[in-house]
Amino acid sequence: MKDYLVHDEWCVIEDKFHSEHNEITESLMSLGNGRMGQRGNFEENYSGKSLQGNYVAGVWFPDKTRVGWWKNGYPDYFAKVINACDWTSVEINVEGEEFDLAKVKILNFRRVLNMKEGTLSRECEVEFPSGNIVKVTSLRFCSMAHDESGALKMTITPVNFSGEICIKPALDGDVKNKDANHGEVFWNELAKESTFGEAYLTMETKKSTWESVPTFQVCTGMKYEVIKNGLPEEVTALPLKAEKFIGAEIKSHVILGETLTLIKYAVNISSENYATSLLTKEAKNYIKNISEIGFEKMLTLHKEVWAEKWNRNDIKIEGDKAAQQGIRFNIFHLQQTYTGKDARLNIGPKGFTGEKYGGVTYWDTEAYCLPFYLSVAEPEVSRNLLVYRHNHLQKAIENAQKLGFSNGAALYPMVTMNGEECHNEWEITFEEIHRNGAIAYAIFDYINYTGDKNYLNEFGLDVLISISRFWAQRVNWSANLNKYVMLGVTGPNEYENNVNNNFYTNYLAVWTLKYTLESIQYCKENASRFAEISNKLSFDFEEETKLWNDIIEKMYFPYDSERGVYLQQDGFLDKELLSVDQITEHRPINQKWSWDRILRSCFIKQADVLQGFYFFENDFDLDAHRRNFDFYEPMTVHESSLSPCVHTILACKLDKIEKAYEMYVRTARLDLDDYNNDTEDGLHITSMAGTWMSVVKGFGGMRVEDTQLHLNPKLPANWEGLAFRIGINGVLLEVKVNKSGVSLENLSDKDTEIKLYDSMVSVKAYSSYQNY
Amino acid sequence: MKDYLVHDEWCVIEDKFHSEHNEITESLMSLGNGRMGQRGNFEENYSGKSLQGNYVAGVWFPDKTRVGWWKNGYPDYFAKVINACDWTSVEINVEGEEFDLAKVKILNFRRVLNMKEGTLSRECEVEFPSGNIVKVTSLRFCSMAHDESGALKMTITPVNFSGEICIKPALDGDVKNKDANHGEVFWNELAKESTFGEAYLTMETKKSTWESVPTFQVCTGMKYEVIKNGLPEEVTALPLKAEKFIGAEIKSHVILGETLTLIKYAVNISSENYATSLLTKEAKNYIKNISEIGFEKMLTLHKEVWAEKWNRNDIKIEGDKAAQQGIRFNIFHLQQTYTGKDARLNIGPKGFTGEKYGGVTYWDTEAYCLPFYLSVAEPEVSRNLLVYRHNHLQKAIENAQKLGFSNGAALYPMVTMNGEECHNEWEITFEEIHRNGAIAYAIFDYINYTGDKNYLNEFGLDVLISISRFWAQRVNWSANLNKYVMLGVTGPNEYENNVNNNFYTNYLAVWTLKYTLESIQYCKENASRFAEISNKLSFDFEEETKLWNDIIEKMYFPYDSERGVYLQQDGFLDKELLSVDQITEHRPINQKWSWDRILRSCFIKQADVLQGFYFFENDFDLDAHRRNFDFYEPMTVHESSLSPCVHTILACKLDKIEKAYEMYVRTARLDLDDYNNDTEDGLHITSMAGTWMSVVKGFGGMRVEDTQLHLNPKLPANWEGLAFRIGINGVLLEVKVNKSGVSLENLSDKDTEIKLYDSMVSVKAYSSYQNY
Repeated sequence: MKDYLVHDEWCVIEDKFHSEHNEITESLMSLGNGRMGQRGNFEENYSGKSLQGNYVAGVWFPDKTRVGWWKNGYPDYFAKVINACDWTSVEINVEGEEFDLAKVKILNFRRVLNMKEGTLSRECEVEFPSGNIVKVTSLRFCSMAHDESGALKMTITPVNFSGEICIKPALDGDVKNKDANHGEVFWNELAKESTFGEAYLTMETKKSTWESVPTFQVCTGMKYEVIKNGLPEEVTALPLKAEKFIGAEIKSHVILGETLTLIKYAVNISSENYATSLLTKEAKNYIKNISEIGFEKMLTLHKEVWAEKWNRNDIKIEGDKAAQQGIRFNIFHLQQTYTGKDARLNIGPKGFTGEKYGGVTYWDTEAYCLPFYLSVAEPEVSRNLLVYRHNHLQKAIENAQKLGFSNGAALYPMVTMNGEECHNEWEITFEEIHRNGAIAYAIFDYINYTGDKNYLNEFGLDVLISISRFWAQRVNWSANLNKYVMLGVTGPNEYENNVNNNFYTNYLAVWTLKYTLESIQYCKENASRFAEISNKLSFDFEEETKLWNDIIEKMYFPYDSERGVYLQQDGFLDKELLSVDQITEHRPINQKWSWDRILRSCFIKQADVLQGFYFFENDFDLDAHRRNFDFYEPMTVHESSLSPCVHTILACKLDKIEKAYEMYVRTARLDLDDYNNDTEDGLHITSMAGTWMSVVKGFGGMRVEDTQLHLNPKLPANWEGLAFRIGINGVLLEVKVNKSGVSLENLSDKDTEIKLYDSMVSVKAYSSYQNY
Repeated sequence: MKDYLVHDEWCVIEDKFHSEHNEITESLMSLGNGRMGQRGNFEENYSGKSLQGNYVAGVWFPDKTRVGWWKNGYPDYFAKVINACDWTSVEINVEGEEFDLAKVKILNFRRVLNMKEGTLSRECEVEFPSGNIVKVTSLRFCSMAHDESGALKMTITPVNFSGEICIKPALDGDVKNKDANHGEVFWNELAKESTFGEAYLTMETKKSTWESVPTFQVCTGMKYEVIKNGLPEEVTALPLKAEKFIGAEIKSHVILGETLTLIKYAVNISSENYATSLLTKEAKNYIKNISEIGFEKMLTLHKEVWAEKWNRNDIKIEGDKAAQQGIRFNIFHLQQTYTGKDARLNIGPKGFTGEKYGGVTYWDTEAYCLPFYLSVAEPEVSRNLLVYRHNHLQKAIENAQKLGFSNGAALYPMVTMNGEECHNEWEITFEEIHRNGAIAYAIFDYINYTGDKNYLNEFGLDVLISISRFWAQRVNWSANLNKYVMLGVTGPNEYENNVNNNFYTNYLAVWTLKYTLESIQYCKENASRFAEISNKLSFDFEEETKLWNDIIEKMYFPYDSERGVYLQQDGFLDKELLSVDQITEHRPINQKWSWDRILRSCFIKQADVLQGFYFFENDFDLDAHRRNFDFYEPMTVHESSLSPCVHTILACKLDKIEKAYEMYVRTARLDLDDYNNDTEDGLHITSMAGTWMSVVKGFGGMRVEDTQLHLNPKLPANWEGLAFRIGINGVLLEVKVNKSGVSLENLSDKDTEIKLYDSMVSVKAYSSYQNY
């Protein structure tokens, strides 16, 4: 745990340079706009600890799988997020001395991520070995308004001398991936060109062994302007060229009292969105457009988009500045990682903040991120997350075929970029199949929230049928139990592997079958494409659903009637049942225990049975909730960042607000305080959605049932107040909770009804309601 | 399956060069003498398919572990068998044309592994592009009589021309390991020197990251003699030197009708056996000694050792030449892999025939190889296999500590060279712990066969106590079952991972506890070192054995009372119970099925419950044998080469001779016929012992109970006769079985009593008995 950043409601502030934590700060201060992004690296050369990272959404490389021992069915490659051309690069030389924060004396320093406005700025004053002192400021953003571009402004001011300042704005494509499996470099240079004030570098990802995997081309372009004392400065630029590098060297004599300013506009134009033959041309057009708009106006437009976003999704926590900063930090990063404009994109585990793990889509998207986007963005955003999976259906069917399934059964991958499975640990890749259920559940979740049932006809039903086919083949009949069983799975609790009858997975499978049957019924009755879909999938309704109904009726769920709890899996009660407080000095067990010891123990990495209760709370009464929570919670070590939020939500439901708050603080500042010593690799983007859920679904008690909003707010003792905004049914609602009670403000032009605690409450357009 | 070799009773013959199978032939025709060995590579350069392999016993490299995803507890390195200096190298040039079988026209060719005499010879006639024809013969052996040396003889005879023949005898240390995890080269050159007719090359293994791992030095030396037409030839030799290479170039004009002969003596002197400062000196002495003995006499002494070995261990099968060749092939390779002279050595999975898998010691040694050496060699040979583990006890204790065990509990490694665990698949490394039981069982097996109970006092008891401590900590009390259980294990059947209550493991654990208690009792009563051992191990007899007795009494064994079978593990009956003949087109499943499908299925890689019945047959009646065999046999795919022998033995016991024979043929010629398409990597040395067991314990029905030999021979229908020799209690016995009955011949000077079928039979010294 680290505590070197200033607690501030809207900003992340480093007010003294912590070179030892620079990689952490770089992660925290990453910027993005859904299409591109980069870590908070310094613009100039920095020879200290740094992880350079620039990313273009949708651009990846199939990195050859690396394993110790190959298992049948492993995928050939792991789709890696790749480090792309660095557009922010500006080398600075002052009187022949290099401006490198590792080599100068830092007199003062302040680096600020402004989350309200989406900018990263820096001010510093440094002394060179010669005694020359300069002040350097920088400001940059990844434009939300023009999402294939970014811009930066740097100023250099001599403080105690006059002399020559040399600046080198450049595009640096000579980058590596730290996380490459075999140390491979992923890019080749294709072309570059420069004219005065502009430069373009086009690179292409290397051809891989896998012919079906496309290569990607990206043209990165820049235009720069030099300003002295506020006026455009005519300067001579010496072109700089090297392999995968293009830039310019500009020298200017600056007199004490003068300020030299560089403005740099940059674009990333990708073959994902343009014909390869037109990349440079499009880059030039884009550059022309934004440079004509100009830096200040571009920045204003960018801020306006952020203002609009915060207007929909801000959360205010009174009386707890650290919590306030934490929740906004999470919302900020989620918003800049995924904007929902493009159904080919998804939410990578590190977003634009690092390269680790690769892939962009885990079940996190459906189980944790979807609820966030449902509430804070237009329905189209969430819809695109679902369409992404719809578009990968064929790959999911092929993936299941590789594992021996047939007849159009689909198994969605554990990790993917393009629909192909990437992960290669058998106990996860082949067995953590509950992800398939989460994808089905997300369709339900979306329709339940938005009421957009027509989604089933358009994109949902084929996915549901194909997943149901998988479940129907994945179970087998146990003559011994006279029930259907599901053998050899790994649940969300990855501290158990290859278990039988994982309650959560079995429950999700049966639920999927039921929901698919309901959905078929709906589509049949509602002038639908059912016949067309059925035909396309060669779906034999009578025959296949007969088995589904049989499974629904005769599925086995391990249950302990003595305790009244569902068992996480067969044999769970044969373990030595300890509680987490008995192994305090052994935690975290994933660092202190060997894998077999973890597996044999009762300790739970991540909510498992309770994840099922969270998804299907109406299927179980409050007592069942309490019994299962009280049984499993003491054994849960929460060594996944996705775990505590579910416990917070259930604890709130069970009126265990203190426990809920204890769980909440574990994740709220996970990255800001570097709890797990891994923030330097990038941020835990998807678990940020869990933190949002903790606040809104936990303390806010927000639920939706068939588009009807329910609220059940319960405030932690040390919070003065909580306010959050959610959008539902075309209504934007601000919910404010304080010690006295709850107020609801309808910020839209549409009347609405809300179930607050146990009563229905009407809130007219632009009106408020309060219960105190 | 391949069938390109001649079926011959004593030889493996390739009578036409099969370049496409050359790597297979190289494996099959490997030579060794327990101290050194090499694959059947050609002496001259060969540019076709070849896997070069020269090995020096006890010399290895800690190759950095390679995994996709690190799990806590994985070892740092995998001890790799390393390819060492090639002493056989003799380049040949004829009138400026290179003798390379891939580049000449082969007129005739014959390569012979003579298993009776332990030699590899070759005769061939080839035509060069120029039209010149030469005849080349070679003969080599790894001396059993002088086990740090080998020798070879090559002759070259021009057939249709006179001209200059150039030969380059050399020591080539510039070798790589195909199986290196990271492509690393493992050797550095230390020194080399040559004088006329001799050369010495000393190499050292690289320093590794692990300081505790020693480096090894090996001095390889050679002396050569040139003979023309049977008379020593004075030749001038041009010295050849390069990095890790030393040799000489000899030119001789050979007239049509003359024959040029090269004799090459070689030694491998290792720092394992000599002070590093003396390596070259010792190599020179050794070379001097063997070259004075001379090639022919050396060969004679070598053959004498082999004659002695065959005298003890030959098996004759009448009426089945393929089976006869197969069983001798297996005995031959076992004998040249391990001679039992040095307790630091063990039996590598590939012996001296390949580098794959690394390590030298698996549980194969105790469970499969020990019974072979007990019967065919002096007791010291088997004893050294046990002492090897005794010497690794401290490492086994440390290994268990790494996994969280304490108080001197020992877990022997799955794979090892020096006692350190090497393997890195969690489901095996951490969970396939039955290996620990096999090591305890081997102590019992040895004492049961030899009567050497004093072994307990000397080396056995501390190992048993430490293994028992492991079992006592590895089980846990299940309040649910009111029994002790053992969770999270992998049994011998590796097609199940991380299961609970594996019958075999649970049974072996309880047996170990019982046997350790008995052994303690024996040591206490027999003027023993018990107090000393107890003290050294801080063994609290009262306290610790109280728990052991409780576990013995209350261990859980999964059992199906309806079928009367022990269950391989908890939940086995929930699987879909199919038989192997229902999935014929899916076999081998390890190639055709994904790992999860294999795990979920009922199919068994290797005997598991039946392995327990094999070890502890007297604990179960014949009906229990039959029920369990009939239940499990149809589900066993035998995709481990260690599986069929156990089924053969049990099938013989159950009078299912046809089934026994079906099982037997699966392994008898596994390598000779390249059943698994992997002979090119090296031979399956340890499973060869299983084949021997199939014959002697299966068809021979041989058992030993407290040093008393039992025989129960049953001949397969297509065999005319079977004869095998076994040594026990200082008696060498030949057992002959034919259609008429059994004859026993006592080849020693000591009377003996044998239980033949149900009767006790006396056979006086140098006498026979027959029951027909």
